[in-house]
Amino acid sequence: MDIFKFAVPELIFGRGSLKYTGICAKRLGAAKIFVVSDPGVEAAGWTQQLFELLGEEHLDYVYFNDVVANPRDYQVQRGAELYRREGADVVLALGGGSPMDAAKGIALVVSNGGKIRDYEGANQVKRPLPPMVFVPTTMGSESNISQFTVISDVERRLKMTLISRTLVPNISITDPLLLTTMTRDLVIPPLFDSLAHAVESYVSPIASPFTEVMSLRGLDLLIRHIRNAINTLHIDDLEQLAVAGSWSGMAFTNASVGLGHALAHALGGMYDIVHGMAHALLLPHVMRYNLGVSLKKMAKIGTILTGRTLADDEETALFGIEMVEQLREEFGLPSRLREILPDKTKLPQVSRNAVNDICLLTNPRPATWKDILNIYYEAW
Amino acid sequence: MDIFKFAVPELIFGRGSLKYTGICAKRLGAAKIFVVSDPGVEAAGWTQQLFELLGEEHLDYVYFNDVVANPRDYQVQRGAELYRREGADVVLALGGGSPMDAAKGIALVVSNGGKIRDYEGANQVKRPLPPMVFVPTTMGSESNISQFTVISDVERRLKMTLISRTLVPNISITDPLLLTTMTRDLVIPPLFDSLAHAVESYVSPIASPFTEVMSLRGLDLLIRHIRNAINTLHIDDLEQLAVAGSWSGMAFTNASVGLGHALAHALGGMYDIVHGMAHALLLPHVMRYNLGVSLKKMAKIGTILTGRTLADDEETALFGIEMVEQLREEFGLPSRLREILPDKTKLPQVSRNAVNDICLLTNPRPATWKDILNIYYEAW
Repeated sequence: MDIFKFAVPELIFGRGSLKYTGICAKRLGAAKIFVVSDPGVEAAGWTQQLFELLGEEHLDYVYFNDVVANPRDYQVQRGAELYRREGADVVLALGGGSPMDAAKGIALVVSNGGKIRDYEGANQVKRPLPPMVFVPTTMGSESNISQFTVISDVERRLKMTLISRTLVPNISITDPLLLTTMTRDLVIPPLFDSLAHAVESYVSPIASPFTEVMSLRGLDLLIRHIRNAINTLHIDDLEQLAVAGSWSGMAFTNASVGLGHALAHALGGMYDIVHGMAHALLLPHVMRYNLGVSLKKMAKIGTILTGRTLADDEETALFGIEMVEQLREEFGLPSRLREILPDKTKLPQVSRNAVNDICLLTNPRPATWKDILNIYYEAW
Repeated sequence: MDIFKFAVPELIFGRGSLKYTGICAKRLGAAKIFVVSDPGVEAAGWTQQLFELLGEEHLDYVYFNDVVANPRDYQVQRGAELYRREGADVVLALGGGSPMDAAKGIALVVSNGGKIRDYEGANQVKRPLPPMVFVPTTMGSESNISQFTVISDVERRLKMTLISRTLVPNISITDPLLLTTMTRDLVIPPLFDSLAHAVESYVSPIASPFTEVMSLRGLDLLIRHIRNAINTLHIDDLEQLAVAGSWSGMAFTNASVGLGHALAHALGGMYDIVHGMAHALLLPHVMRYNLGVSLKKMAKIGTILTGRTLADDEETALFGIEMVEQLREEFGLPSRLREILPDKTKLPQVSRNAVNDICLLTNPRPATWKDILNIYYEAW
């Protein structure tokens, strides 16, 4: 067994746990909290509720909501300027993957200086970040658990992946009640991100005996509850998906992800598409690409996704891949890249960007930019 | 689902990972490390190896080895005096449960003042502790993962249980190579402690969807490898037991333990017996006591321990309890309390001590001191 590391933030989980947010920020020494959220979360009423909770704790805060899906490098920079100008001391993110990733970028820039681009890749962060309390309002991104942040570089039209232990929030507060204001359209795409986290962390060459169990547990819970959750948006199922996502989050923050994330980042950076949608379209192709080198593990995934073990590992694995495609169809998502992209002329450049993504290092099978281009074409 | 919290230290795991100890202490700001170990670990050569590693990192340290099994309150006090006199700044424990628990006590007293007795119970610690890096040389106590420390109060002849999130070490380094110098007699008792951690955390009323999975995973790995490990002392099996213990440790630090630990602490405090030995003798009786209120969960435990599911839950659960007794017999341990205790005159007082142990709060079935006395008599 190789030497491995395992680290997760302190987790608080359960209906109503939002109320602990202020106390947690206080425990981390907050005098002036830098709250990051976005207009969608505002519209659902959660930011207002958070502000009231902070008021009850007599906590001062400054609010930043200049965040879009696939948060931009210039937004991080603006947030950092506001943080410095206001003399904030704790970062509190309330939202989906985008506000959380933006908040990490801001925390990084205010403590380490320069531009977010300076820290692209793994382990480039030298100085400690301000304390971070993260409250997700979606399940799937798991930015509240992970040491990852992904920020769009608008000039280069790519998404930068940054990995550092310092990017793990101090405290993650998952309140399943916050999931109940999501529409069906908002719920679906991040679940394919979650699926990719479970699958990619499981077949990662740096998976450990801890993360392997967590990946499979995440996958198992996800497949058991995804249909009910999407068809009914019932809190019980959404809550189970939040548990599932947390397992997969604990797995991938330690075992990393692979080719699928490299592909999704590069595509999202060029075309500004929804991250989970990219996974829905690409994951089956990525699973087929990795099939030969991870046969036993891919068969295990197949068994969990389908509840069946077929004649041999390959058949079982392929049946699992078909299940991912079937889920995509059931939920009414597009099945080909051409349905959401204008043309394929930029795919060679996207492939060259993908090959530089740090996530590719932990894919079980190496891939050149041409291999990647082939996968995009297959998915076209 | 109730609100739950989940926190574990940063874990480093693997053969040869001892070499990261100095780097980890440095990362936590060490200028002068307070090393806690004991003569047994010295005799195995591990303290010397640690000192050499610290030397290579040019790290200054002071050494404290005045620790016995069931570490004493006065030893904690002596350690704290030495720590203050030497101006140490990071606590590094290398050893089994005793040096690790003593090290926690020392870290607590130097930062919070007073005597260790002042902090008995749950959440009595007010100020942050110095950073702690723990390196276990046995598997089973999981003090390197947990928020527990247990210190003998020699005046009252009882073991105090202290629980606080501040008692979770910052970094836990588990190097399975360190397990290879243990004799069979040293390996066996803590494995019954580990078994009790898995069982008691699983049936705890504050078990969460995270800890339940971890308890069962710990139990499953333990039962798969315990015989080989003890019969061969082979590194591969010892390593798997270390993984098993880590799972159970992550479970019980968050879900706590129950009646079995209350009983073992009280008995150990009065008679200074080996903690794991107390569990070997008491656990089956505790499992029977809890059977009716945790039937489904006890049946699940039975299935994992025996690999079988019998006609009904009760039969399956009882078969699991018999398996614990069988293991005890296979490994040549005594089966009755009377084989290791001088007489039973003090058992009423021991029972009155047990009923005050904080662990009792998280037992699924309440117990009065008379219930507890009955269990001791059953085990006599």
